[in-house]
Amino acid sequence: MEEKLEQAYLYDFYGELLNEHQRQVYEDFVFNDLSLGEIASEEGISRQGVADLIKRCNKKLLDYEAKLHLVEKFMSIKSDIRRIHELTNDFKKSHNELLMNEIEAISNQILEEL
Amino acid sequence: MEEKLEQAYLYDFYGELLNEHQRQVYEDFVFNDLSLGEIASEEGISRQGVADLIKRCNKKLLDYEAKLHLVEKFMSIKSDIRRIHELTNDFKKSHNELLMNEIEAISNQILEEL
Repeated sequence: MEEKLEQAYLYDFYGELLNEHQRQVYEDFVFNDLSLGEIASEEGISRQGVADLIKRCNKKLLDYEAKLHLVEKFMSIKSDIRRIHELTNDFKKSHNELLMNEIEAISNQILEEL
Repeated sequence: MEEKLEQAYLYDFYGELLNEHQRQVYEDFVFNDLSLGEIASEEGISRQGVADLIKRCNKKLLDYEAKLHLVEKFMSIKSDIRRIHELTNDFKKSHNELLMNEIEAISNQILEEL
């Protein structure tokens, strides 16, 4: 996964576990796409200070994911649901009932995992 | 939700964020259904010590859920998927194509939430 996209997902799941200052800086960097220099002058800290803070946030978010695997779990469900959505559309075009069996199997598999 | 069931869900999601001793005691209480007295003599601490530890674990797990809402999110997805699964079965019996539209709508809604 592209690094900023991965950071965005991790932040979506675990961002509330960072403190307010960390969240502010991390959001500016990952979502508002500000440069380290821009954030540094905004926050009144050094460029290196910003870089260190972002590194610490990345580590904290990755540590949570290493323990909880919730981003991974959600991504897997998302891809399964996308498949169900496609199969429903395919069915509407083809009326091939085998597609129903596949939807049933995928939904059953998700239920077992959840 | 019944208290022990709620504790079990919270533990499934956030248990890895407790320390090893907390996990051991919490598992004995919630999953192995040991009494406070049984855990106390197993761990060599007082009954009150066990009660306090479980209370602290509950608080920690509930704090994580209050911040991240991941159990709530998963429960909601699970109920949607269960509905898709039912609709697929209903369709196989009735061949009512409106059911397909409902499956499509639910899967679309989950994708937007994920």
